Amino acid sequence: MTQRHVINASVSPKGSLETLSQREVQQLSEAGSGSIYTLFRQCALAILNTGAHVDNAKTILEAYKDFEIRIHQQDRGVRLELLNAPADAFVDGEMIASTREMLFSALRDIVYTENELDSQRIDLSSSQGISDYVFHLLRNARTLRPGVEPKIVVCWGGHSINTEEYKYTKKVGHELGLRSLDICTGCGPGVMKGPMKGATIAHAKQRIHGGRYLGLTEPGIIAAEAPNPIVNELVILPDIEKRLEAFVRVGHGIIIFPGGAGTAEEFLYLLGILMHPSNQDLPFPVILTGPKSAAPYLDQLHAFVGATLGEAAQKHYQIIIDDPAEVARQMTQGLKEVKQFRRERNDAFHFNWLLKIDEGFQRPFDPTHANMASLGLSRDLPPHELAANLRRAFSGIVAGNVKDKGIRLIEEHGPYEIHGDPAIMEPLDRLLQAFVAQHRMKLPGGAAYVPCYRVVT
Amino acid sequence: MTQRHVINASVSPKGSLETLSQREVQQLSEAGSGSIYTLFRQCALAILNTGAHVDNAKTILEAYKDFEIRIHQQDRGVRLELLNAPADAFVDGEMIASTREMLFSALRDIVYTENELDSQRIDLSSSQGISDYVFHLLRNARTLRPGVEPKIVVCWGGHSINTEEYKYTKKVGHELGLRSLDICTGCGPGVMKGPMKGATIAHAKQRIHGGRYLGLTEPGIIAAEAPNPIVNELVILPDIEKRLEAFVRVGHGIIIFPGGAGTAEEFLYLLGILMHPSNQDLPFPVILTGPKSAAPYLDQLHAFVGATLGEAAQKHYQIIIDDPAEVARQMTQGLKEVKQFRRERNDAFHFNWLLKIDEGFQRPFDPTHANMASLGLSRDLPPHELAANLRRAFSGIVAGNVKDKGIRLIEEHGPYEIHGDPAIMEPLDRLLQAFVAQHRMKLPGGAAYVPCYRVVT
Amino acid sequence: MTQRHVINASVSPKGSLETLSQREVQQLSEAGSGSIYTLFRQCALAILNTGAHVDNAKTILEAYKDFEIRIHQQDRGVRLELLNAPADAFVDGEMIASTREMLFSALRDIVYTENELDSQRIDLSSSQGISDYVFHLLRNARTLRPGVEPKIVVCWGGHSINTEEYKYTKKVGHELGLRSLDICTGCGPGVMKGPMKGATIAHAKQRIHGGRYLGLTEPGIIAAEAPNPIVNELVILPDIEKRLEAFVRVGHGIIIFPGGAGTAEEFLYLLGILMHPSNQDLPFPVILTGPKSAAPYLDQLHAFVGATLGEAAQKHYQIIIDDPAEVARQMTQGLKEVKQFRRERNDAFHFNWLLKIDEGFQRPFDPTHANMASLGLSRDLPPHELAANLRRAFSGIVAGNVKDKGIRLIEEHGPYEIHGDPAIMEPLDRLLQAFVAQHRMKLPGGAAYVPCYRVVT
Amino acid sequence: MTQRHVINASVSPKGSLETLSQREVQQLSEAGSGSIYTLFRQCALAILNTGAHVDNAKTILEAYKDFEIRIHQQDRGVRLELLNAPADAFVDGEMIASTREMLFSALRDIVYTENELDSQRIDLSSSQGISDYVFHLLRNARTLRPGVEPKIVVCWGGHSINTEEYKYTKKVGHELGLRSLDICTGCGPGVMKGPMKGATIAHAKQRIHGGRYLGLTEPGIIAAEAPNPIVNELVILPDIEKRLEAFVRVGHGIIIFPGGAGTAEEFLYLLGILMHPSNQDLPFPVILTGPKSAAPYLDQLHAFVGATLGEAAQKHYQIIIDDPAEVARQMTQGLKEVKQFRRERNDAFHFNWLLKIDEGFQRPFDPTHANMASLGLSRDLPPHELAANLRRAFSGIVAGNVKDKGIRLIEEHGPYEIHGDPAIMEPLDRLLQAFVAQHRMKLPGGAAYVPCYRVVT
Repeated sequence: MTQRHVINASVSPKGSLETLSQREVQQLSEAGSGSIYTLFRQCALAILNTGAHVDNAKTILEAYKDFEIRIHQQDRGVRLELLNAPADAFVDGEMIASTREMLFSALRDIVYTENELDSQRIDLSSSQGISDYVFHLLRNARTLRPGVEPKIVVCWGGHSINTEEYKYTKKVGHELGLRSLDICTGCGPGVMKGPMKGATIAHAKQRIHGGRYLGLTEPGIIAAEAPNPIVNELVILPDIEKRLEAFVRVGHGIIIFPGGAGTAEEFLYLLGILMHPSNQDLPFPVILTGPKSAAPYLDQLHAFVGATLGEAAQKHYQIIIDDPAEVARQMTQGLKEVKQFRRERNDAFHFNWLLKIDEGFQRPFDPTHANMASLGLSRDLPPHELAANLRRAFSGIVAGNVKDKGIRLIEEHGPYEIHGDPAIMEPLDRLLQAFVAQHRMKLPGGAAYVPCYRVVT
Repeated sequence: MTQRHVINASVSPKGSLETLSQREVQQLSEAGSGSIYTLFRQCALAILNTGAHVDNAKTILEAYKDFEIRIHQQDRGVRLELLNAPADAFVDGEMIASTREMLFSALRDIVYTENELDSQRIDLSSSQGISDYVFHLLRNARTLRPGVEPKIVVCWGGHSINTEEYKYTKKVGHELGLRSLDICTGCGPGVMKGPMKGATIAHAKQRIHGGRYLGLTEPGIIAAEAPNPIVNELVILPDIEKRLEAFVRVGHGIIIFPGGAGTAEEFLYLLGILMHPSNQDLPFPVILTGPKSAAPYLDQLHAFVGATLGEAAQKHYQIIIDDPAEVARQMTQGLKEVKQFRRERNDAFHFNWLLKIDEGFQRPFDPTHANMASLGLSRDLPPHELAANLRRAFSGIVAGNVKDKGIRLIEEHGPYEIHGDPAIMEPLDRLLQAFVAQHRMKLPGGAAYVPCYRVVT
Repeated sequence: MTQRHVINASVSPKGSLETLSQREVQQLSEAGSGSIYTLFRQCALAILNTGAHVDNAKTILEAYKDFEIRIHQQDRGVRLELLNAPADAFVDGEMIASTREMLFSALRDIVYTENELDSQRIDLSSSQGISDYVFHLLRNARTLRPGVEPKIVVCWGGHSINTEEYKYTKKVGHELGLRSLDICTGCGPGVMKGPMKGATIAHAKQRIHGGRYLGLTEPGIIAAEAPNPIVNELVILPDIEKRLEAFVRVGHGIIIFPGGAGTAEEFLYLLGILMHPSNQDLPFPVILTGPKSAAPYLDQLHAFVGATLGEAAQKHYQIIIDDPAEVARQMTQGLKEVKQFRRERNDAFHFNWLLKIDEGFQRPFDPTHANMASLGLSRDLPPHELAANLRRAFSGIVAGNVKDKGIRLIEEHGPYEIHGDPAIMEPLDRLLQAFVAQHRMKLPGGAAYVPCYRVVT
Repeated sequence: MTQRHVINASVSPKGSLETLSQREVQQLSEAGSGSIYTLFRQCALAILNTGAHVDNAKTILEAYKDFEIRIHQQDRGVRLELLNAPADAFVDGEMIASTREMLFSALRDIVYTENELDSQRIDLSSSQGISDYVFHLLRNARTLRPGVEPKIVVCWGGHSINTEEYKYTKKVGHELGLRSLDICTGCGPGVMKGPMKGATIAHAKQRIHGGRYLGLTEPGIIAAEAPNPIVNELVILPDIEKRLEAFVRVGHGIIIFPGGAGTAEEFLYLLGILMHPSNQDLPFPVILTGPKSAAPYLDQLHAFVGATLGEAAQKHYQIIIDDPAEVARQMTQGLKEVKQFRRERNDAFHFNWLLKIDEGFQRPFDPTHANMASLGLSRDLPPHELAANLRRAFSGIVAGNVKDKGIRLIEEHGPYEIHGDPAIMEPLDRLLQAFVAQHRMKLPGGAAYVPCYRVVT
């Protein structure tokens, strides 16, 4: 971050459909901590920072302390004025179209989220109310398209992966794209970018216009994992739990590539839900895959699931090593079953209403030291509740690794302590150590990784 | 209405983008008086009744007492099941695409309006709050398109006009369309249809795809003035005042053709606003026009404005007799000034924020006999307030003529009594008598018109 | 023609795909009688003259003697410079988009036709060679679209019809358009315009973008029957016989409205072909229709067919009086059979290769006085040959009525003499007299019609 | 080629606009040496072989001796039936859309080329006639689009390059794509693919739909350098000279990457034309570029130009090492001058009419041993003529390396002998030896390269 090129620019929302009322423009102009201006500024900075190879939100925010963004109402719509903006988002002084689009998507989501929360119709105290809220946010972002057959494949995995793994994700994306499937990721670098790139080339070969590259993020994560510019639909959900719910309700199948703590969080979240008795008959294709070199990693993850959640959990996914075409074929087959199932049950193709998500997975988890220390990690719990708590443990580690707030907490109080059953703690410790050894915790280039947690057995 | 062809059908929202949450589907399924189901059923019936030559909402509602509409959530989105629906909206058993679109537009607007009202962000007690509300409704209906130059021409005038006048509105629409202008009307028959038809042909000649034929209506009026099928954007505002505000905020210029009480209401509303001191410098092209045979009518209307609101009011419009091309040329010229003005003031092209609308024009007027009897129609009032009250008088007459609720009130209590200054009452009486004599009050074909009012001097 | 507004303008081919080589630009610049410049100038004048209510090619050509058109090669393609052009094709100084498109279509067809004739691959001495030639012309004009289901309905009928008949053609076009059918006509006024106008409105209602309004003409006829601006695909075939072949090979069904000599020519051409033994099993829906007032006309035409070609000929069409929806339903049904047949026989949807057209119908007929006098109009001929000769008789009458060359011949030598069997001559004479009495020979407004022929029995 | 997966399939031209007359279908069905069937079969095989890593046309043709392709006329257009086709072009049994498109492009070009040659209007004995011919072929392929600003960048370079060079071409393509430029190449692997891939990703980022990836090839070269599937417009010109002329007339600027004999041929062709006195003032941006590792190669090429054609030749291009963004900026700047120039001279943006190409560059060169032995390679010639002869020398080497006919000639008669001035022969020998040493002559993987030529000094 030593060399910091900045630029001042004025951006009109060419091609964007977003309009704001005068009141909304005014809301966005009121600075102050906790204001929606602060939130928007932070997301905008992340979006503009798209090329940077840094995954530390705090570092980025501090590097562009003097970055400012002003909103103006104009004849042709809203205009954004940027001061001291990262120069990477510009080509010969003009902002890249995808970046411009994402800025206005962020504007849309932040304004809507804020206003929606004021509404009496949203009841965040009930599970159904939270799902309705996620639905409204996605609908407002025009993510939900009625009449389209199930073909959104969610790709999860690390933002920090090696070249071989990255190339593999491109190949899988290419095979998915050749079969007309769309890609949804967490919209950062690494696994969040490779499949989209591969699919872009494949869609070009198949003459598919309007292929979708959907990126779902949230304000805490976006700064660390800036959206890659292939993303052509960006949605900023209000927090990590809404984002996870959005993934499993709009995605029709999920592929899990190698990754670190964030990937483990997502995987445990998914298993916890699929193991819920109400979801027993619901088809949901899940594939773990990677190149040959990633086989040990996938084996270890598989073993961790077996050791903690048991064999029943292992039945919810298949593992395919080093065979992108087979991954795509299996996914295609799985999507056919999803389609058949939704048709029979009259469930929407565009939103998985029938999937039961327990409130335990929906409630935001605040990774304070106290909360991290008191997670119930015991084999006595029903597996889907244990999965929920393990999910929280990894969520905390992600925060401590890359999120602004988490990093500050660790700086202040030292590493989190994670307690629990030895039968859980030991495989957990092994898995985390492997993540560290394999450089899956953080983007390379910085100093050696210092763990933000301590496993206490 | 003697021969009543009905049909049962199931309609999917092909091409529509509307999706509903489970909660919204449920809301729409709960019948009962005052429910949103009742509202939707009533609007749907009106939309399906598009071909009928009746303008009496009560008659229509009673003719299709057994009409039902059921909403189902399905794999490809929402499906509507219709029972005993008017057959006119179908060709060989299949619903006309524009009708299908309008049904889903109605669904969208009714669900949104309902939910929006629950929101704390909407403050209907302030003028600004009401304008924001109108903005939100229009934005949700995708009516507001940033980046487009001013070219929406509102055409006002009667739903009950003679053949020569109808042909003239087609010619004017044709000339407007040749100049790439879009049309916005109240979306019923007569003047609400002619200009759209002419513009459709002209847009075809000019190879303009995506010409806009915008219809703005409200639940009370839609049943009497069913949307014509040329309308390709239908918006149902919650009441007459929101609808009038929508007209003057999205329209860039207005053409007034011959009409009856409804047209007079619109004209007085417009004059009252334009005469507000805050709007003094705001360009807003208004043209009164008609064929040669309509010259006496236009002269009388002009004289009425002079006699009641004075010469200053007359300066806000020009009159052009029997020259469609000149109407279009003058409108084109006026729109240039609008564009220039908004650019200079940084006002949105897509929403006329700078136009000041007094709360007196925004508050719903309930045409009870008491309210109608106590309108202050006196020359002592400032002209824009007198205009507001005259507007209310005509609004009540429209309700008594064609709206379900108004007709029932008149049936119960007899005609409204309208009191006021003789200097106002006499020209008013003359104008109303002329409307009756010229068959402008109701569609022909029924019994002789019985006035729903009495002018008391 | 007394008031002659002219305009000078420069037109670029916005949206047109036509490009010319330098050699082609040069060819088009070489004036002189018989040159392709002369041909292009004449067609261009006709296209620009679109609004005029005159059907006399000679009159039009003489009225704009000083009209000139110059072709320039430019950075963005070909530019046309027009001098003393009819002002009707312009709106506020700018050419109507459809007119501009048609000018470049004319350019395309004239250049291609000319060059194609130089090619050794075209063998105009064989029936197959002529059909290939027609195919090449249509392909070059992008008229042939593979992959589209049969839905082109040819509408034939008079350019000079009364208001009731005109409105009826609009209604039929409307019903066809509601059923997603496309319209093909001879591209002038009257019957050539009404169905297109009706279909335009219906396509708008059905949200059909890209409805086709195909106009087929030829240089001799275009000046008298200027293309109406609804036409969105104009093709100029080199002569009347190629145009007729194009109609029956691209059209999937044919509707015949009231008309005069030209309509009779088309009808006899069609019957002659359908009666050919090779076409016995080939489905080809043909419907004669008109409003109630046209029933006597249709009866007379029907009787004429019976009296000359016999009952067998009458089986090739059905007559429907005053029922636009039924016409559209029958046509839709007929098109289903066409589709089924072509699918079974592997014939192209876009070109009716299997239709056998005898050389007698393909060879150009030159209506000199000698040729007209020696037509073999005898019941001894096989019916399809008699049909061919009757077709020639009517073709000559059309030339004498409206074509530049024909009018000059009649001015010089007096009316044509038509000889033949009394059994043919008498019904022919009656039919022609009826055409005259019903003002079907020429547009009204000129002097009383003076026949250009004499039936000699 | 040991493992040879084949597939039988039937392909309809979904989305293609190509239609054939019955006569053309018949022409294509007549087998026999020299027939257009043979030509089409050979091109089709190359297109289907898109994934193969072989650049020996003879090997490919022999590997698929039993490949057959049959053309059928059908209801929805032409259908192709493939027997024993390479399986690589299919995904789960279905042909990749781009491959399907290219098959129908080949069909279109081969049929048109054949028929055009029969036409008297084509005069291949004059320079102007040859240019008109190239224009007609490109127009028929819909390559020429009027109204579009100059933005086609031709990328020349080797099909056999190393990974670093390949990645560099992707980066340059990416920078060109970010600036909205289109790519045109010889449509094979290596340099012909990299820039298209980079531009595809960049166009996605810039939300550019309809980016053009134009591939120009000819029947002799296509089998060895199969079109990569990014190509979305394929044109098969009849021979190498027409292809070269197409490159310089549709391309607005040219980038030359490292390559072998083919690249040298193209570069000398270009220099020979630009050095023609008539082209003195004509702007034509030419950039030589490569990664740092390619600097020695580019230096050697630059030196060769200096040693043979002199300093004047070196002024027609600039060299940029390892700076993709700078390449794109310089090209953008150069294109501005091209635009300005064509606007001033009224030359078409879509075809460079003003570029003078000497007949010496247009006449096909047949690389027989006799012709190769008698090239006049002397410094006494005017530079642009010497360039023409050097171009022929390299053209012969390409044929001997990869083309079916050339390989057979060398097998029969041994290597070509190239004679000339030592002042020319020595730098030529050095350049060729460098090509061999750097593996630029042939794709790696086969046996060691055996030169098909001998430089005789």
